[in-house]
Amino acid sequence: MFVLSDSKNQLRNIVRSDCKYKGRIIDLRVDTVKFPSGSEKVREVVLHKSAVGILPVNDRGEIILVRQYRHAIDEDIYEIPAGLVEEGEDPRETAVREMQEEIGYRPGHMEEIAEFYSSPGFCTEKITVYYADELTSSKLPEDEDEYIKVFAFAPEELEKMIAEKKIKDGKTLMAFYWYMARRPQK
Amino acid sequence: MFVLSDSKNQLRNIVRSDCKYKGRIIDLRVDTVKFPSGSEKVREVVLHKSAVGILPVNDRGEIILVRQYRHAIDEDIYEIPAGLVEEGEDPRETAVREMQEEIGYRPGHMEEIAEFYSSPGFCTEKITVYYADELTSSKLPEDEDEYIKVFAFAPEELEKMIAEKKIKDGKTLMAFYWYMARRPQK
Repeated sequence: MFVLSDSKNQLRNIVRSDCKYKGRIIDLRVDTVKFPSGSEKVREVVLHKSAVGILPVNDRGEIILVRQYRHAIDEDIYEIPAGLVEEGEDPRETAVREMQEEIGYRPGHMEEIAEFYSSPGFCTEKITVYYADELTSSKLPEDEDEYIKVFAFAPEELEKMIAEKKIKDGKTLMAFYWYMARRPQK
Repeated sequence: MFVLSDSKNQLRNIVRSDCKYKGRIIDLRVDTVKFPSGSEKVREVVLHKSAVGILPVNDRGEIILVRQYRHAIDEDIYEIPAGLVEEGEDPRETAVREMQEEIGYRPGHMEEIAEFYSSPGFCTEKITVYYADELTSSKLPEDEDEYIKVFAFAPEELEKMIAEKKIKDGKTLMAFYWYMARRPQK
């Protein structure tokens, strides 16, 4: 039994650790962990790159979303523009690059909304989400085999779509409610 | 080459599909997908059970969070009470059960905030998040080897903690901003 040297927690007694898969965007590790009670349990860990998402608001006050097919869930869904942080890239650079690739704008102003784990129970993926406005046209080529459609919705339209369960992406809902919570009170 | 019969999308031409791992809370499938351009690409899919989260608000207007160690990220983090939907369980039942196990209350009133994918780019996990209030004491035993601490924070305290980057869980941020966006305007 060994304890990982960089552990922040005394409970982290890993008896055994197996890499089950090394892939394109994820790796899978299966750890056997010994608890203070003495029992041993399996913990599956999906290792995933960091990602960014951006809530872009245009000068008409509309929120720009993309719609694309997601293979994992076999659905077309609306999402804020998003992407994986490449090796050596700062997440803010990723955000500006992804905006240009996916919606054809770059932001004059950008601020961080939050940095969070998408599913800390089993996955290391960390997402940084930004708010962006003062948009100017600037198009970079899309990734090959991405089939992205771009939409702009007034906040009231988005509220209606949420009520109709048409928005199914966690980071998109988080960013939208953040925006609604900080809007000037009428 | 075959097309999954239940596919909602014509692009879903799966050339090959391999189950790489079958586990406790996740399975891993690796698909080779043929795109309209003719190119073939690998898509990794993590199959994960559905989950619930609950934003409980007590009669002092405080939000109840739990703090627990998460092995995947090797950190103690604050989260809304949450858990996996068991076989045959309705998500609302899961929510009421998890509240009793993790914080020792059951709700008199509960409403759905949203149902969303935590990371639709690679994972099937769907989370239903509820708002709960009118809490009454009702304790069920915790799962073995869960070491959960319970906290109650005023919304203003939580806002400060978020500004200090002390809240790192996506579903918790989403639920909190939903709550702030709908609070009566002062």
